[in-house]
Amino acid sequence: MKNVVVIGGGTGVFTVLSGLKNYPLNLTAIVTIADDGGSSGLLREEFGILPPGDIRRALVALSSSSPLLAKLFSYRFSNGTGLKGHSFGNLFLTALEKVTGDFKTAIKEAGKILDIKGEVIPVSLENTRLFARLENDLLVMGESNIDVPKHDGNLLIKEVFLNPQVKANREALAAIKKADWIIIGPGDLYTSIIPNFLVKGVREALKKSKAKKIYVLNIMTKFGETNSFTADKFLSVLEKYLGKGVIDYIIINTEKPKKQYLEKYKKEQAEPVKYDKKYFSQLKKPKPVYAKLIRNGPLLRHDPKKLASVIYQIITNN
Amino acid sequence: MKNVVVIGGGTGVFTVLSGLKNYPLNLTAIVTIADDGGSSGLLREEFGILPPGDIRRALVALSSSSPLLAKLFSYRFSNGTGLKGHSFGNLFLTALEKVTGDFKTAIKEAGKILDIKGEVIPVSLENTRLFARLENDLLVMGESNIDVPKHDGNLLIKEVFLNPQVKANREALAAIKKADWIIIGPGDLYTSIIPNFLVKGVREALKKSKAKKIYVLNIMTKFGETNSFTADKFLSVLEKYLGKGVIDYIIINTEKPKKQYLEKYKKEQAEPVKYDKKYFSQLKKPKPVYAKLIRNGPLLRHDPKKLASVIYQIITNN
Repeated sequence: MKNVVVIGGGTGVFTVLSGLKNYPLNLTAIVTIADDGGSSGLLREEFGILPPGDIRRALVALSSSSPLLAKLFSYRFSNGTGLKGHSFGNLFLTALEKVTGDFKTAIKEAGKILDIKGEVIPVSLENTRLFARLENDLLVMGESNIDVPKHDGNLLIKEVFLNPQVKANREALAAIKKADWIIIGPGDLYTSIIPNFLVKGVREALKKSKAKKIYVLNIMTKFGETNSFTADKFLSVLEKYLGKGVIDYIIINTEKPKKQYLEKYKKEQAEPVKYDKKYFSQLKKPKPVYAKLIRNGPLLRHDPKKLASVIYQIITNN
Repeated sequence: MKNVVVIGGGTGVFTVLSGLKNYPLNLTAIVTIADDGGSSGLLREEFGILPPGDIRRALVALSSSSPLLAKLFSYRFSNGTGLKGHSFGNLFLTALEKVTGDFKTAIKEAGKILDIKGEVIPVSLENTRLFARLENDLLVMGESNIDVPKHDGNLLIKEVFLNPQVKANREALAAIKKADWIIIGPGDLYTSIIPNFLVKGVREALKKSKAKKIYVLNIMTKFGETNSFTADKFLSVLEKYLGKGVIDYIIINTEKPKKQYLEKYKKEQAEPVKYDKKYFSQLKKPKPVYAKLIRNGPLLRHDPKKLASVIYQIITNN
């Protein structure tokens, strides 16, 4: 079986994993540890653990136990003093960390309980924080403040970085080394994708790895992060952090979102990512792969099955 | 295999179950739902669920999954806004109740996850509260207020009752009907044991049941509940609620606690339960069974192995 590593964070990793887990592939998810908002942020602050949210989502995506257990893990308390807003899975990982004594073991044990098909690896085991420098040189501290801007979201991001600088989790580097294929994205470019490549050692490991790399382009832009970004802009920013020529394939959605679903996004100043086929046809790398990929319903996100099918086709044709 | 039903609450049920689960017996735990203190009380109030604490303890006792999962279930958050003091297992049951839609299913599913040997059944599925009427006719509301008296704990309890009156869980009645043996206690007489018999239908089911009943007498008295109670007093109060002649065996600890461990108990106005062998030798029922039963260490409680061995002997000799 091919070794496939999925790198990202947020719901994007969930989408890719939950689709790919139905194929005969050896899956490993490497997830960001930059999250500092909501339930994860609070647990991180109060228990000094790594933010559990992205890990939880990846675990649930790979779970092959009863749907109930996955549902339980994703359950969010809707009331209760101090419990409200907490995801049960996050509390599960927090308690496991306390009982086992370390986060790595906690993830492994949670994986056993959820009977996951594959592995989930935090990109680093060290605590750090994501910063963004805006075009006016304002510094924004914290993933959640970049993700949902409290500053003027029209200002573009000049760069993101981690402080303190942290080392990669050895297991993450080993997985990248062993990989035949590496899937990057979809997900928020600056807050879910790039934070992985800011971790010391990851960029180098990716360059060295003989794995072919697939970048799954987002369907929609995001206010405060990728305002009006076109496909080539997404790619060029990613390549700024990864190195030019690292990505072998870019998967681009060609499906037009339904008008009624676009309204909400318009209000949030998000729009479908535009692409120029001509531009990509002239590139040596990455090779563009076009497909209709939007899931049914109001959320303009990738359909896990459709996306997995396209990825699997690329893998088997190469 | 013999059907053995264990009735009680608190740590007593845990002790009996964790000892007996090593014997070839078909175990069912029927646990009280009167608890309203601490983590259970808060979850009960805020989520409208049955108090999970006693159920959690019984589940953990019967668990045959990894020791880690049992440890996780018993883990209590020691910090965290709003999380502090909550038992993880209680949160687990609460979240499961929300996800499955009812508490009965939640217990069954938790039992599957913990791979329990046996069954755990709340004595009732309805919400109620325990009241105590003291000798001066003062009414005390709530299990936790009776358990740890805020009133003058020297006042004896005249009676306890539930308000509202609730019906027994059908499964509890079925288990009692099917039982070959029923173990009652050890545990706090008024707050862990008797509340089970106050539930409509339980007392009648116990009387009708052909099962032999064993009462495990406490090792120590408890301030505010059983001040200076002797063995025969424990029995007579229990029989007041159960009916005279219902108990077939009473297991009495004969081991003298170590002096250094008694100090702490003395401060809490608790003392070893005294018994009069002559008194019991003249009784037609229950038959007294004497044994040395104290566990090692500062907690003057039954040793699960020793207690289980005595119970199993009674069962196999009859």
